[in-house]
Amino acid sequence: MAQKPSIPKGTRDFSPVQVAKRNYIINTIKEKFQLFGFQPIETPSFENSDTLMGKYGEEGDRLIFKILNSGDYLNKIDNSLYESKDSKKITSIISEKALRYDLTVPFARYVVQHQNEIDFPFKRYQIQPVWRADRPQKGRFREFYQCDADVVGSISLWQEVDFIKLYDAVFTALQLEGVTIKMNNRKILSGIAEVIGASDKLIDFTVALDKLDKIGEEGVKKEMLNKGISETAIEKVKPLFDFKGTSSEKVEKLKAMLATSEEGMRGVEELEFILTAVEEMSLETASIDLDVTLARGLNYYTGAIFEVSAPDTVKMGSIGGGGRYDDLTGIFGLKNISGMGISFGLDRIYLVLEELNLFPETVTPVTKVLFINFGENEALYCLKAIQKLRKDKIVAELYPDSAKMKKQMTYANKRSIPFVVLAGTEEVKNKSFTVKDMVSGTQTEMNYEKLKEFLQ
Amino acid sequence: MAQKPSIPKGTRDFSPVQVAKRNYIINTIKEKFQLFGFQPIETPSFENSDTLMGKYGEEGDRLIFKILNSGDYLNKIDNSLYESKDSKKITSIISEKALRYDLTVPFARYVVQHQNEIDFPFKRYQIQPVWRADRPQKGRFREFYQCDADVVGSISLWQEVDFIKLYDAVFTALQLEGVTIKMNNRKILSGIAEVIGASDKLIDFTVALDKLDKIGEEGVKKEMLNKGISETAIEKVKPLFDFKGTSSEKVEKLKAMLATSEEGMRGVEELEFILTAVEEMSLETASIDLDVTLARGLNYYTGAIFEVSAPDTVKMGSIGGGGRYDDLTGIFGLKNISGMGISFGLDRIYLVLEELNLFPETVTPVTKVLFINFGENEALYCLKAIQKLRKDKIVAELYPDSAKMKKQMTYANKRSIPFVVLAGTEEVKNKSFTVKDMVSGTQTEMNYEKLKEFLQ
Repeated sequence: MAQKPSIPKGTRDFSPVQVAKRNYIINTIKEKFQLFGFQPIETPSFENSDTLMGKYGEEGDRLIFKILNSGDYLNKIDNSLYESKDSKKITSIISEKALRYDLTVPFARYVVQHQNEIDFPFKRYQIQPVWRADRPQKGRFREFYQCDADVVGSISLWQEVDFIKLYDAVFTALQLEGVTIKMNNRKILSGIAEVIGASDKLIDFTVALDKLDKIGEEGVKKEMLNKGISETAIEKVKPLFDFKGTSSEKVEKLKAMLATSEEGMRGVEELEFILTAVEEMSLETASIDLDVTLARGLNYYTGAIFEVSAPDTVKMGSIGGGGRYDDLTGIFGLKNISGMGISFGLDRIYLVLEELNLFPETVTPVTKVLFINFGENEALYCLKAIQKLRKDKIVAELYPDSAKMKKQMTYANKRSIPFVVLAGTEEVKNKSFTVKDMVSGTQTEMNYEKLKEFLQ
Repeated sequence: MAQKPSIPKGTRDFSPVQVAKRNYIINTIKEKFQLFGFQPIETPSFENSDTLMGKYGEEGDRLIFKILNSGDYLNKIDNSLYESKDSKKITSIISEKALRYDLTVPFARYVVQHQNEIDFPFKRYQIQPVWRADRPQKGRFREFYQCDADVVGSISLWQEVDFIKLYDAVFTALQLEGVTIKMNNRKILSGIAEVIGASDKLIDFTVALDKLDKIGEEGVKKEMLNKGISETAIEKVKPLFDFKGTSSEKVEKLKAMLATSEEGMRGVEELEFILTAVEEMSLETASIDLDVTLARGLNYYTGAIFEVSAPDTVKMGSIGGGGRYDDLTGIFGLKNISGMGISFGLDRIYLVLEELNLFPETVTPVTKVLFINFGENEALYCLKAIQKLRKDKIVAELYPDSAKMKKQMTYANKRSIPFVVLAGTEEVKNKSFTVKDMVSGTQTEMNYEKLKEFLQ
């Protein structure tokens, strides 16, 4: 029976310290979500395959974990299909359920399914694990949490403003100062494509532009030419290659560049509205940066696009992102519901806080005091005191066995328990407790009231 | 593309109110777990199939959700096996991972895998979902949470005492008064089997005894006779048929009955120790009941067995259970680690609190104040006030669109938001806010400081 136990690749066990640190981040995010008026929902870990398949592109479909039907599932495959041994075709017969791939599609499904119970605009948050059959690598897991907040049912740009404030509030509360909220707008990117006369080359164009940092202006131009974007077109968007300055300078450059594109100008207007409002309200620790190379979720977002990057001192990909989507629920038959949402990258935020040493020391719940077990009578005496301490929210424990003193003390040390109570025959007689400070080593005898005060 | 969306049978969406109520229970349990010195761990949602299969009996194996391998999984089945079309045999080739069926086996796997990082005795808690391909029915789901606390690495009976106190603490905190913690001991059941000279009939015997309430003494005797238990044997355990009285009276009856069984007497001693200690320490709102018919997890527990039942006024199965197991980790090659653990039944506790109307009114996070949107200028004015209110932890929101007044008021009403702020041109000019009490309908104009005080 004995096996060497292990867990599937790409998954993780979390130790008490890790759980405590993760919960610290999750609780901070949750608290701010609630403060901003978002309400929690939860959806099942697995959905009907129909709900998920075809929503994330071909690659996405491949990465969705499928759950095998119960019982004699092969029996339901007709013989000619079975003979084909075609894994892809057979999958849809032998698997009707699949693990959630993200929180967005289940949310869209939720909104449509429960539309009659929901008051729009509906502000929901959802913090749950998702699963992807991706090749595991450093920082990429097959099971990981997403922390999403979305509003559906309003096209107001005040939402964008509020989401920026929300990012700022969360990272400020986490004491992670200096994050940059990069912002772009799908309409600007479309506008650029229009201006260069190549609306069909939008992706090629942005992919090339995105490499500016790495391959420089000449490299980018070369790639654009290779992709069939003309010299004249490239000349028109030249300002993008040196897109620096204050937000308002950038906005002016965009206005000049996009003057002939109605959609582009609408994107600039949206950006300008958001930037002005945010400036009026001011951010606490984050800063906002207009980044025209930002093309996150281009097939998906229809307005504002956000991506949050960690402070410059840390090398880390984006720690959050989001944007405006105009037709989230259309796939499930509910049209004209505009939405806007953002997401926090729990695992990366964890790594950033770890690297910058920003987890508060008190984050791990630590037992305050361990009562040494000297035997049955003493143990009962101690448990009665422990019971009273717990009433006052002091985390107290009895060592369960009357083991050798040294063993019990070592246990307290290993678990970083700061105080130990020694209550032997003498103390029971005196109705007292001898407290030992595990750092200084000093011992003091006191009555219960003193003990309680001392530990508080 | 449009589909009528639904979720797989046996799974649930949770609305904001439901999430809030579930979290109220979970947070109460978690708080007490931590107060008693338990530390949280988390394990992956899916384990290697090897880890889970064969641990829950044949029925359990059938109920485990299996995850389909990625890629061209059928290709790995050799032709002769494939031709057999044997679902059961083929499953082990095309599925290497499976969803967690409970938290106990993953915990055992965790302890063995991380034994060198763990300080024993190890007190852990774990609150995570589990999945079972059971036939869904009222109150039985395919995805549900388990809330477990266990200690491994000590055989001390003080653990049992502490777990009883923990049950009492949690249900007291939930204001669920009058729960009964039923206790038995596997050794007593074995002792009875020994005394009646039929150690092999232990299960038959307890199954029959368990029906005492329903079929009466004669019915039970008849069933025992049918199962091959002799008249003489039944005569010996006659006191069980009328097993009433105080705990100490019951203990005396057991002592008389089990005098000749060494194991039985050890069970009685254990019970007596626990009962005496609990009596010395007293329980707050729960009561303890020695119930020799209790046979929960008989194949699994080796000492104390617990089951918690809701107050008599509610018809509900057990809302918690647990016990002592002497060899949890043996299946993974780590011998001689004794453990003891208890579990809380989240879904049933939810139903009980709902039925008895015990959820605090404040359990659902409600937005305190909605600012009506009169247009761009006013909205910005409002958002600045909202920003300050949030700093003081007051949940405030702006209605995102400058929609018709009536629409905005209806929204506030539907969401049960108690106050609405009206800040139009006049208020902006006066630097004031008109607050409307949504219940009484009264309106008062005040400055920001007053508004803040008012909402606090």
